[in-house]
Amino acid sequence: MAGDHGSEDLVLGAIQAARDFNHEVVLVGDSQKLKNILTNLVRTISEQAGQKSDFRESIATKITVVHASEVVGMDEAPLEALRKKKDSSISVAFQLAKNGEVDAVVSAGNSGATMAAAVKSLGRLTGVSRPGIAGIFPTLKKPLTMVDVGANVDCRPKHLFQFAVMGAALSQLLIHEENPRVGLLSIGEERGKGNILVKKTHEILTGSSLNYIGNVEGREAFQGNVDVMVCDGFVGNVCLKLSEGLAEAMVSMLRDEIAKNFKAKVGYMLSKKAFANFKKRTDYAEYGGAPLLGLDGTAIICHGRSNALAIKNAINIAAEMVDKELNKLISTFLTDNSEAVSALE
Amino acid sequence: MAGDHGSEDLVLGAIQAARDFNHEVVLVGDSQKLKNILTNLVRTISEQAGQKSDFRESIATKITVVHASEVVGMDEAPLEALRKKKDSSISVAFQLAKNGEVDAVVSAGNSGATMAAAVKSLGRLTGVSRPGIAGIFPTLKKPLTMVDVGANVDCRPKHLFQFAVMGAALSQLLIHEENPRVGLLSIGEERGKGNILVKKTHEILTGSSLNYIGNVEGREAFQGNVDVMVCDGFVGNVCLKLSEGLAEAMVSMLRDEIAKNFKAKVGYMLSKKAFANFKKRTDYAEYGGAPLLGLDGTAIICHGRSNALAIKNAINIAAEMVDKELNKLISTFLTDNSEAVSALE
Repeated sequence: MAGDHGSEDLVLGAIQAARDFNHEVVLVGDSQKLKNILTNLVRTISEQAGQKSDFRESIATKITVVHASEVVGMDEAPLEALRKKKDSSISVAFQLAKNGEVDAVVSAGNSGATMAAAVKSLGRLTGVSRPGIAGIFPTLKKPLTMVDVGANVDCRPKHLFQFAVMGAALSQLLIHEENPRVGLLSIGEERGKGNILVKKTHEILTGSSLNYIGNVEGREAFQGNVDVMVCDGFVGNVCLKLSEGLAEAMVSMLRDEIAKNFKAKVGYMLSKKAFANFKKRTDYAEYGGAPLLGLDGTAIICHGRSNALAIKNAINIAAEMVDKELNKLISTFLTDNSEAVSALE
Repeated sequence: MAGDHGSEDLVLGAIQAARDFNHEVVLVGDSQKLKNILTNLVRTISEQAGQKSDFRESIATKITVVHASEVVGMDEAPLEALRKKKDSSISVAFQLAKNGEVDAVVSAGNSGATMAAAVKSLGRLTGVSRPGIAGIFPTLKKPLTMVDVGANVDCRPKHLFQFAVMGAALSQLLIHEENPRVGLLSIGEERGKGNILVKKTHEILTGSSLNYIGNVEGREAFQGNVDVMVCDGFVGNVCLKLSEGLAEAMVSMLRDEIAKNFKAKVGYMLSKKAFANFKKRTDYAEYGGAPLLGLDGTAIICHGRSNALAIKNAINIAAEMVDKELNKLISTFLTDNSEAVSALE
């Protein structure tokens, strides 16, 4: 129900996920409203594409609606909102997951409330102290997985180690990297560089079974030479938002400069396809959303500004996380490294 | 003597600062080598511009050379290098500053060694616990000053408060902002958002005489709606390097896309001026270097990759910091706020 764009884009993303990837989707929220949007969108798409009634029928079997009478606002305090609004779409969605009626939850709503409801309903995987949020960033090569991008602002070394394990498992399964390279975000590549947290985490990672390549600087993030970047949730969230802001500002500065003279405008028209491809390569929507890692279940937090493409891709990634048994791999990695961690606790 | 490009670019920057801004510059390093570079560059510039001998004479009076027999390597451990190499260019330069023979030091060498030599030779301003490094970032409006971008990786709230004071003073004098807006880098704008360090710093800043606008997210950094951004040196350095890396990666992705087809290449040729202006707006060299704040003196750390333009601008900014009496303003701001800080210690 939530998200900045209203429900229309979310429902459209769900329809596209059902149509393009054959996923079954349950929409949770004001059922009358959602059914209306669903009917209208399916009709429009059928008409536009000249599709026959079998499209409508197939969508009807793949998308169902479950009612929730309340919505957690984007700016509400998460815990208080969940306590007050027992019948919020976020709570109901995770209740469905808890009961095994759905395999995964995708939310573009209040991210703090999504995280809290996920942990409360699904619980943590054995061996995980704190679930983390994975951000997936475009780079010059394959996408980079960064953990944690916002769930845990004050961390201890073992938390960062668990983020590394969970990020490595996600990267291996989703980005198709055998033995992904894990780096620790720091301010210099040498062993002694970093704050106290990073220095201690470096020791644990060095003794682990992960493919740990050492400290990595922010400079390297977008070169594509590291697959998993580990940091605390404060640093990760700052990086996430700074990157978004810088990318937007750069596009806007370039647009400014191009608008200033006629020749440049003509040039822009000719390069339009290149700009579109560029936009696609840097668009957050290509990666859908941010997987929550370390839950005894599957959930993805989407940007409040998510468009239909982002929702469609997030649903598909959630399905992949379930199908490829991400949590099983995380547990294996944790067991493999239990000694490395306990030795330093 | 140091820097990634060798001494040629540094000397050229010094010549340009003398020629364009009328500054007197002392070059510190291998005197024979520096004099040769200087003579060659002055000759080339005179010939190219068809300038008469008065250019040579004026440069000769404005640029002098002081010998230092050693160089601290870019990758050397700062403290050890300074201890071993008493006659390094960095040490000699700060000795000149200590003796009052120069007003400011500009270094493109090992930044840790520059910082350490600066603190040791010049000492700290009264009331400053830890000097910080200011990064100056391009935005859609006026440049943003970020403190600390790397000197202090583990900080307490009072350190962040002092960074705020020093950054505000710098922004007010250099970026010409009356009463610059100070923001605290965090992961949400609401009062309760952030890690423990940020939450406590927020309290001090709220009670201060600074124009404190509250928590600011990384997203906002490049919009130009905040003049000074405060953070610990770990977060700041990560942001600095991440921004550089992202900007480079974006330019490289766009270039890739444009190279893919002929029409786009023609388009690029037509938009060339727009791209050049864009590059100028985002070029770190426009801002020269990173001022060290909180010293009882003046120093600027330049990027190891500094070109002549960066050095010229850094020399000019150093001169402005001296002329406009930055340290006096920092001291005034600190005195104005001594109660706000001591109340929370």
